[in-house]
Amino acid sequence: MSDTLFPGKYADAAQTDLAHADPAPVDPALIDPTHSAHTRAYGAIHSNGPIGAMTIERRALLPDDVAIDVLYCGVCHSDIHMIRGEWGEQPFPMVPGHEFVGRVTAVGHAVTRFVPGDFAGVGCMVDSCGACDNCNAGLEQYCTAGATLTYASPDPRGAGPTLGGYSERIVVRERFVVKVPKDADLARTAPLLCSGVTTFSPMQHWRLGSGQRFAVIGLGGLGHMALKLAVHRGAEATVFTTSADKANDAYAMGAHDVVVWQPAASLPIPHAQDMANRFDFLLSTIPSPFDLAPFLPLIRRDGTFVNVGAPGTIGGVTGAGLWNQRRSLVASCIGGMPETQELVDYCCTNAIHPEIELIRPNQIDAAYLRVENKHVRYRFVIDLASARA
Amino acid sequence: MSDTLFPGKYADAAQTDLAHADPAPVDPALIDPTHSAHTRAYGAIHSNGPIGAMTIERRALLPDDVAIDVLYCGVCHSDIHMIRGEWGEQPFPMVPGHEFVGRVTAVGHAVTRFVPGDFAGVGCMVDSCGACDNCNAGLEQYCTAGATLTYASPDPRGAGPTLGGYSERIVVRERFVVKVPKDADLARTAPLLCSGVTTFSPMQHWRLGSGQRFAVIGLGGLGHMALKLAVHRGAEATVFTTSADKANDAYAMGAHDVVVWQPAASLPIPHAQDMANRFDFLLSTIPSPFDLAPFLPLIRRDGTFVNVGAPGTIGGVTGAGLWNQRRSLVASCIGGMPETQELVDYCCTNAIHPEIELIRPNQIDAAYLRVENKHVRYRFVIDLASARA
Repeated sequence: MSDTLFPGKYADAAQTDLAHADPAPVDPALIDPTHSAHTRAYGAIHSNGPIGAMTIERRALLPDDVAIDVLYCGVCHSDIHMIRGEWGEQPFPMVPGHEFVGRVTAVGHAVTRFVPGDFAGVGCMVDSCGACDNCNAGLEQYCTAGATLTYASPDPRGAGPTLGGYSERIVVRERFVVKVPKDADLARTAPLLCSGVTTFSPMQHWRLGSGQRFAVIGLGGLGHMALKLAVHRGAEATVFTTSADKANDAYAMGAHDVVVWQPAASLPIPHAQDMANRFDFLLSTIPSPFDLAPFLPLIRRDGTFVNVGAPGTIGGVTGAGLWNQRRSLVASCIGGMPETQELVDYCCTNAIHPEIELIRPNQIDAAYLRVENKHVRYRFVIDLASARA
Repeated sequence: MSDTLFPGKYADAAQTDLAHADPAPVDPALIDPTHSAHTRAYGAIHSNGPIGAMTIERRALLPDDVAIDVLYCGVCHSDIHMIRGEWGEQPFPMVPGHEFVGRVTAVGHAVTRFVPGDFAGVGCMVDSCGACDNCNAGLEQYCTAGATLTYASPDPRGAGPTLGGYSERIVVRERFVVKVPKDADLARTAPLLCSGVTTFSPMQHWRLGSGQRFAVIGLGGLGHMALKLAVHRGAEATVFTTSADKANDAYAMGAHDVVVWQPAASLPIPHAQDMANRFDFLLSTIPSPFDLAPFLPLIRRDGTFVNVGAPGTIGGVTGAGLWNQRRSLVASCIGGMPETQELVDYCCTNAIHPEIELIRPNQIDAAYLRVENKHVRYRFVIDLASARA
C-alpha cells in the first residue's frame, strides 16, 4: 500500500483556482492593540464569508492551561458546514480548525503532562464540566452539561465563542490536549485528532474485529481513515464511493472491494443482491442527510450501521428492516480524551496516517470548494508553521 | 401486584357488541370431505373479511412432526394487521394465530421430546431451513432462507400457505414446538409464545439489567408483558401510554412511573425535560409508523431504543440525535426456539404471565375492534378447548 498517495508538499495552485494571492487583509475592528496575546488567525467575519487573516487574542494561562504554537491544522468538512451556516446559525467571527498539532510554548503551574517543547494535539473539544458521569468515564464528548467545542462554542474560560486551530497560537486546558510523539509526522498526525478518532472510536465501542466484513460509505477525510483503520484491524473492507476515480486509491489503501454507487433512491446499489446480509459493520461518513434503506439489507445478523457523518435526517429507517436480522443503527461522536490519546499513540506506533495535501492559509477557500466537490485526496492540512516562518 | 387484573373468564358480552351470536357458517368450498384430517378453524376468506368458522385440513405426520390439539390461542395485533392487509397483500383464506398452547395427540417416529398427552406451545414460526448460520445458532427467526411463519406463509411441508392457531388441531415440526409444564396456567401461557418472547429476547440480547432505567412505550399485549418482565429483572420501569385509564394497571404491574402522552408531533411528551438522558433501555411496542424524535433525548449515554412493534417507517431519526450520547436504535423479531423455550420456562417458574381476557371463537371480530380501539386488558385469548367441548 502506498504510504503517501500524493507526495507533493502543497496542493497544485492550478487546482485551487480561487486561492487568494495573499491572505485577505486583517479587519482592524478585530485587533486589540493593548493585548499581549495577539495571535494571527484565519477565519471568516460573517456567515459564508471568505477565510481571511485576522488577529485574535488568546487568554493568559490558567493553572491547568497549555499554550501551543499551532504547526499543522486539518480542514474538516465540518468547518465548511459551520462557515456556510449549514448546521444552524453560528457566531462570527469564526476561526475554524479542530484537528491540529503544535509545539507547547508555555504551561500553567498545575500542568503535569507537558513541558515547553513537547508536541501536542487538540481535537474537537477544549473543555467540559469534568463532573458528570460521562466526564468521569473519560467520555467528555458526551458531557451532559455540553462539551465546549474547539470553535464557535460558548467558552467558560474566555469572553466570547471559542476560536479554533486555523491560528498560530492557542491556549487549551491540559485535559483536552494529547501528547504527540517526538518522532511523529506532524502534518499527518493533525487529522487524527478528528477524522482518526471519529472513525476509531466506533470500531472500538462496537468491536470491529479481525475477519469481520466491514464497509465504509464515503471515501473522504473520515472514510479513508476508517478504511486504513479497519484494514489494520484485519477486517475485510469494502468501500462505497460515488467517485469512480477513487477506486485505485481504495485498493492501494487495502480495500477488498469497491462499489461505485449514486445516492439516488431511483438507483439501486450495484450488486446489492450479492451483498445481502453481508456486512458485520458499515460505517457511514456521508456528511448530509441520507437514506438508510438501500443499505439495510446489506447488514448481516447482529450487524451494526454506524453513522459518524450526518447530523441531519436519516431516512428510510423501517422497523422491519431493522428487526430482520436484528440490525442496529447507531452513531457516535469523536472520542473521549483517553481514547483520543490511545488513537494518536496507536496510529503513530503503527504508521496509520491520513493521505494529506498541505496547503497555505491563503488556499483555504479553494480547499473548501474542492472538499465540497469531492476533489480532495484525502485531507487538506494547513501548514501554519511555514505561514508563520 | 395483582396476579389477575381481570378475573372474569370471558370478556363481557356488552363490551363485544359486534360479537356474532354464533360462528359464521362454514364455507362449503373449503371443506374437503375425503380427507381424514379435517380441522375446525376460524379465519377469513378474504382480506378484511370477518372471522368465521371453516374446515381446513392438516397434513399427515412426517417423522419429526407433532400433532397438537390447540387449547388456547392468543390474539396478537399482528393478526389484525394481516387480516386487514395493513402489512401488504396476503393469501386467503387466512387462519391467524401464532401464540398457542395445546395437548400433543400424536408424534412422528423421529420425535424425541414429546409424547401424546404433553402440553406444547407454538409461536410465530413453524419451519426454517435448519442449515444456515442463523438456524445453527438457534436463531431460526433470522433464517437467511426465510423462516416459515405460522400462518399465511408458503409452507415447505404443505400444499398452500400455512394456517395458524385459531384452529382445533395443528401439525408442527418438533423443532418449532416448545414444552409447556404440566402445571402451567395454559390460557395465560399462550401469549408468551409471541408477546412474551418478543419482549424478552431484546432484554436478553441488549442486557437489560437490575437497576437500569427501563421504559416501555405502549401498554398493550406486548407492552404489559415487557413491563412485567422488566420489573422482574429489577429494572426501574416507566410506562408511556396514550390511555390515561391504564395508569392504575401499570402501577399494579410494578411500574415506577407512568407518562400519558399523545403521539402527535405538535405535542411534546410531558415532563420530557425532566427525563432528558434518563433511560438505559426504551422498548417501543407502537404497532404503526412512529416518530423517534420525541424519545431520542430521553435515552441516556449508550442507551438503546428497541422497536418490536412497528414494521413500517420510523421517522425523526437524526444523526445528531443518535451520536449525542452514542444512542442505538435497534429492533428484534420474536426469539429463536431455544430462547422461546427459555422464556416459557422462566415465566412459568416465576409466575410472570399476561393479563388476559378469554373469549369464544365467535367473539374474535369484536375482540379485534377492541384491540384497535385500545380497549383490551391486556391480551385476548381464544378458548378453543371449550369451543370444541
